[in-house]
Amino acid sequence: NDRLTLLAGPCAIESYDTCAEVVETLKNLTDKLDINYVFKASFDKANRSAIESERGAGMTAGLEVLQKIKDNYQVPIVTDVHESYQCEPVAKVADVLQIPAYLSRQTDLLVAAAKTGLVVNIKKAQFMAPEDIKSAVNKVAQTNEHILVTERGTMFGYHQLVVDMTSLIQMRDTGYPIIFDATHAVQIPSGYGNHSGGNRDYAFPLMRAALAIGIDGIFAEVHPNPPEAISDQDSQLYLSKIQPILENANKLFHEHLDMKAVYDNDELL
Amino acid sequence: NDRLTLLAGPCAIESYDTCAEVVETLKNLTDKLDINYVFKASFDKANRSAIESERGAGMTAGLEVLQKIKDNYQVPIVTDVHESYQCEPVAKVADVLQIPAYLSRQTDLLVAAAKTGLVVNIKKAQFMAPEDIKSAVNKVAQTNEHILVTERGTMFGYHQLVVDMTSLIQMRDTGYPIIFDATHAVQIPSGYGNHSGGNRDYAFPLMRAALAIGIDGIFAEVHPNPPEAISDQDSQLYLSKIQPILENANKLFHEHLDMKAVYDNDELL
Amino acid sequence: NDRLTLLAGPCAIESYDTCAEVVETLKNLTDKLDINYVFKASFDKANRSAIESERGAGMTAGLEVLQKIKDNYQVPIVTDVHESYQCEPVAKVADVLQIPAYLSRQTDLLVAAAKTGLVVNIKKAQFMAPEDIKSAVNKVAQTNEHILVTERGTMFGYHQLVVDMTSLIQMRDTGYPIIFDATHAVQIPSGYGNHSGGNRDYAFPLMRAALAIGIDGIFAEVHPNPPEAISDQDSQLYLSKIQPILENANKLFHEHLDMKAVYDNDELL
Amino acid sequence: NDRLTLLAGPCAIESYDTCAEVVETLKNLTDKLDINYVFKASFDKANRSAIESERGAGMTAGLEVLQKIKDNYQVPIVTDVHESYQCEPVAKVADVLQIPAYLSRQTDLLVAAAKTGLVVNIKKAQFMAPEDIKSAVNKVAQTNEHILVTERGTMFGYHQLVVDMTSLIQMRDTGYPIIFDATHAVQIPSGYGNHSGGNRDYAFPLMRAALAIGIDGIFAEVHPNPPEAISDQDSQLYLSKIQPILENANKLFHEHLDMKAVYDNDELL
Repeated sequence: NDRLTLLAGPCAIESYDTCAEVVETLKNLTDKLDINYVFKASFDKANRSAIESERGAGMTAGLEVLQKIKDNYQVPIVTDVHESYQCEPVAKVADVLQIPAYLSRQTDLLVAAAKTGLVVNIKKAQFMAPEDIKSAVNKVAQTNEHILVTERGTMFGYHQLVVDMTSLIQMRDTGYPIIFDATHAVQIPSGYGNHSGGNRDYAFPLMRAALAIGIDGIFAEVHPNPPEAISDQDSQLYLSKIQPILENANKLFHEHLDMKAVYDNDELL
Repeated sequence: NDRLTLLAGPCAIESYDTCAEVVETLKNLTDKLDINYVFKASFDKANRSAIESERGAGMTAGLEVLQKIKDNYQVPIVTDVHESYQCEPVAKVADVLQIPAYLSRQTDLLVAAAKTGLVVNIKKAQFMAPEDIKSAVNKVAQTNEHILVTERGTMFGYHQLVVDMTSLIQMRDTGYPIIFDATHAVQIPSGYGNHSGGNRDYAFPLMRAALAIGIDGIFAEVHPNPPEAISDQDSQLYLSKIQPILENANKLFHEHLDMKAVYDNDELL
Repeated sequence: NDRLTLLAGPCAIESYDTCAEVVETLKNLTDKLDINYVFKASFDKANRSAIESERGAGMTAGLEVLQKIKDNYQVPIVTDVHESYQCEPVAKVADVLQIPAYLSRQTDLLVAAAKTGLVVNIKKAQFMAPEDIKSAVNKVAQTNEHILVTERGTMFGYHQLVVDMTSLIQMRDTGYPIIFDATHAVQIPSGYGNHSGGNRDYAFPLMRAALAIGIDGIFAEVHPNPPEAISDQDSQLYLSKIQPILENANKLFHEHLDMKAVYDNDELL
Repeated sequence: NDRLTLLAGPCAIESYDTCAEVVETLKNLTDKLDINYVFKASFDKANRSAIESERGAGMTAGLEVLQKIKDNYQVPIVTDVHESYQCEPVAKVADVLQIPAYLSRQTDLLVAAAKTGLVVNIKKAQFMAPEDIKSAVNKVAQTNEHILVTERGTMFGYHQLVVDMTSLIQMRDTGYPIIFDATHAVQIPSGYGNHSGGNRDYAFPLMRAALAIGIDGIFAEVHPNPPEAISDQDSQLYLSKIQPILENANKLFHEHLDMKAVYDNDELL
């Protein structure tokens, strides 16, 4: 594909208004930049570190918000599913079902998502080697060839993620589009003991690095006021600062396409 | 507690006969050695690397086998659950519900397991720092104080686990009994590309190391013929060789109890 | 600085002719591209895995070759030192003294290199956190402010390196120019048991990623015939294929400079 | 060998009196317990994080102290060497030359140590896979078969070591005695930014775990007043608390010998 894809929105469905504020800005911006845009928000934060942390709208209320966003802004929707039974009801609203990284080996969930016929976005687990994503992909591909594969970092010691940029190259062997999740990649897992921290400042540089390697799309959590978000306060990007990030990301995406057109692989390596 | 606990049995419920062969030997042996014995087998291998790999008996048939083992051998049963809906039916047969390591952050599953009132054995995820097990424990402890915590190794690079023995000490801060899973700790995740390998020879030495640190129980997969098992062929222990392992493990368990009785912590460190 | 710097040449000083062949091509190319070029070759491979492996020319013969290259091609020279006593004699020929990554905590070596007054290129150890490079830098900066800092990957499990691209940002806090070593970053340490392997194909993509993050220079080993080299056969780049790599790298370097000129950091993050 | 070996003493040679205080206690204790005792202290802390940190007595003054300890207490001496030129003068006093972990791939240092004919204790680098110690051992074994191999932990992410207890088994394949360094294994590398921290409380449990796996000796830094030591304040053991540690360690050492005598390996695994 010769257009950049963007999966972006607030981490959790906090309210219709927050979602609408984000989608309005991102829809306008991506229209101008010729970027494929998919709105992202989660109805449930199903694996919060702490039982006390807010989990968001829940499935029923969350899907209502997503349907309203879809109707009012004409954008496709991506949201994550956590247990098999959720795939069918969520598929009535969403266009892309996302498999959370920790769950990317759960056969039943992958198969149930595949059976909806929607696009399935598989996040590579933080405990998975790049080549192991093939096994996860195979579980979906038996019934459904609409697959995205997302890199979001790998455990490196305790409370630390690292992005192995070569994984983007290795994952390309699956033959499916590769997405780089720039805001989860900068999380500090359980960095505050009972909730995760993050290094928001590294999201844009890592996004640039991934685009320089060559990817098909970017995943990013974007919020009008990240410090007040109910989750991922330290890693979501500010909606007010997203424009230059997307402009530059789009430019690098096309620089990589151009490079590939000029040189073939053998010549370079 | 002043008796060692053993959670052991074949990885998967392959047949009633395999289960019976294992439980018969282990029941006799643990009776003689004054070890608390809980029979373990899984009705579903829900996160196999490859979609083609066998998953075992399934929930309905599997629970029937477990019930028959329980009736015929008078042993408590531990088995794992993978999605919330399984907790209630499984609780009708099992005495201990086990949360698989990859799922140990899934709030719904932990809460559903807790609500059965059974003992819940939480395996610490391969991506989790030792102190983070507290957050998982808290999700269960809100409704159910019958908790076991199990160490089974931590990701160390790709396709490699390492057992951080200090995690056993840190996990003790939860106040709940600590189990060491000696056979999953020696797995080589996705070591064969589409299925996991293992170093069976390291299971007993690591078990000894954990007992020397101080644990309450051992988890081990034991099979009459590991190379022919449908899963974990390289890590399950041979049933025919289990006796000296358990004898020696029990001895080390009591050596540690004796040491603690003689010296208090302050004196030693 | 507004020009890209390149430290490049064969891994070891195998002969004057090999060195001359490499320097001739790289000098011409970097002149055309307005890249600062420094010729690199090692007189001793002092930490080969195996005692049987070739170590190269040795200090006396090696320095003679380097002097001849310098005289004939008018290029500055970088080479590495392994024990303190080598700094003085090597400084008579070299323009940049390089501290090998494994030795980057050895105070005596850093201080001896600093005292020569030459530029000191400190490679960040594979066992060092990004912020720890500051302590190494301080050991040199007490007597000598001419410092380069080089990233070459970090241990990630056994026999595996990973490049944490955020380290390039963190190392920038030292205030000194940051170099990315693209060919050592793709090594597989002791990957063949008694010698190291490598993934040559990842060197250019990682170089691009580092340039997208923002660096001042590139380090790369380049050889007329890598499979016949006495060391790093799997990671050195082919001299015959270096032109498009350098052209593209230079372009990305200037793209990053331009981006920084347009947007300031606050706006982007 | 059927006796436990202990390499122990203060981290640095701070003064003759500190050394004498430690050796007096340890000599008496190990005599009573039938433990082989070697006094350990370093004349130079050659790889301190910070240039400002104290490095100890220096080679000349340090060797004088070591000689006096040797004369007055009739104990063999182990101390570390950092550059090749030190091996010969140090060998005039020491009985065992120790290769620091970071330097365990430096061929010249290993060969120079080997040539003295003394016992060479090679510490496995924090960046080295267990099987890679064979290459280091080979560099010494070409001229000198008196070798000890020491495990002291492996890098696990940033600022974190982990002890892979299976390394003790793998290193045994070298055929040389295996030592476990219990106090460096609990270091937190650069944990305070410009100096290392440590978890002293984990040294004894890890020592027990290593003895349960099976080792030939223990390395431990012991100081009359660790918080006032010039180095490794958080990891050195209190001299006043060493007796029960050594008694218990010796007991576990013999328990392991007894176990091996009863069962052979095939029976157990």
